[in-house]
Amino acid sequence: MSEILRQLADVLEQRKQQSAEKSYVASLYAKGLDTILKKIGEEATETVIAAKGGDKQQIVYETADLWFHCMVLLAQQGLGPDDVLNELQRRFGLSGIEEKAQRQK
Amino acid sequence: MSEILRQLADVLEQRKQQSAEKSYVASLYAKGLDTILKKIGEEATETVIAAKGGDKQQIVYETADLWFHCMVLLAQQGLGPDDVLNELQRRFGLSGIEEKAQRQK
Amino acid sequence: MSEILRQLADVLEQRKQQSAEKSYVASLYAKGLDTILKKIGEEATETVIAAKGGDKQQIVYETADLWFHCMVLLAQQGLGPDDVLNELQRRFGLSGIEEKAQRQK
Amino acid sequence: MSEILRQLADVLEQRKQQSAEKSYVASLYAKGLDTILKKIGEEATETVIAAKGGDKQQIVYETADLWFHCMVLLAQQGLGPDDVLNELQRRFGLSGIEEKAQRQK
Repeated sequence: MSEILRQLADVLEQRKQQSAEKSYVASLYAKGLDTILKKIGEEATETVIAAKGGDKQQIVYETADLWFHCMVLLAQQGLGPDDVLNELQRRFGLSGIEEKAQRQK
Repeated sequence: MSEILRQLADVLEQRKQQSAEKSYVASLYAKGLDTILKKIGEEATETVIAAKGGDKQQIVYETADLWFHCMVLLAQQGLGPDDVLNELQRRFGLSGIEEKAQRQK
Repeated sequence: MSEILRQLADVLEQRKQQSAEKSYVASLYAKGLDTILKKIGEEATETVIAAKGGDKQQIVYETADLWFHCMVLLAQQGLGPDDVLNELQRRFGLSGIEEKAQRQK
Repeated sequence: MSEILRQLADVLEQRKQQSAEKSYVASLYAKGLDTILKKIGEEATETVIAAKGGDKQQIVYETADLWFHCMVLLAQQGLGPDDVLNELQRRFGLSGIEEKAQRQK
């Protein structure tokens, strides 16, 4: 799995112990599933708007926002980015060999 | 970057040379930006529906669909998943050290 | 209530007796809530894309699609457009006097 | 056209003269198209969440929010609810006779 996604998943896991006042992610957990899902809908729309606007930096920014809130959903559900990446690997017949080799280190 | 995402980005790049009849991704490129964006809106909604339905396997499946179509958007725009992951790394102050070490190999 | 919305609500009610093979609306009822909700997410995205594209006729077309699928949701839930219009009336302190007068005929 | 939608369209038109500080609708106009479109994406997602939650009052509430922000988009574009209703009428072969008769009064 991506080291960045793995580190981010760790951060999201740690936020489960923090107070909603001090952490945006903790406040999302506290507000619950519906609030997290609203953010996913919102960020998907903002990605569409950015892409129609034609500003590549904005597309990257909004896609990052969208993936981030998907990561929050996964964490809240006891899932992680490896579940999603494994599904993509399975679906596209990707070897993942180098990936697996790295994990064995 | 994730080896799986990197491999998938390579696959998406290769699909730019294929005919729309033989490849779903090539057909998305041929239909153009609006069709890709419709899929992102659609898959985001399906992720929300899956999460409200409470089936974790379905959440993984729909999130994979959503990320996949985001990857198609990035490829169509000459961008890639590393742009999004670097934005997440920057935003969350993730070290990415191990990642960079891997890339230098 | 709008005569057009009322007539459309009547049409949607009648479709509950039809076979899914002969009627698009009946096929939506047969597929169930999730399919109707996917359409709402899809049409909302298409409205956003149309608006960013700047084609006013397309904005009207996609908004009609969006409202139509909301009407299907309302019908499927045993609700109707009058519920939505009454909520708007209440919220904006609209008199609705002429409307009520028309209904009493 | 619905008297409620017509009155609401009038209110939305009047808001074009107001200051963004005093009116939510005026603040949407001031922020511009992208902000209005984000709201449409947001409210569509909230309608989906409400429907999956099974609370009929919440479905009505969120659909009203969605239609309201569509009305703001129409107003901002120099369009109105009659454009959308006429499109629905055309599409479903609705007579609209009673409607037209009412308008002639």
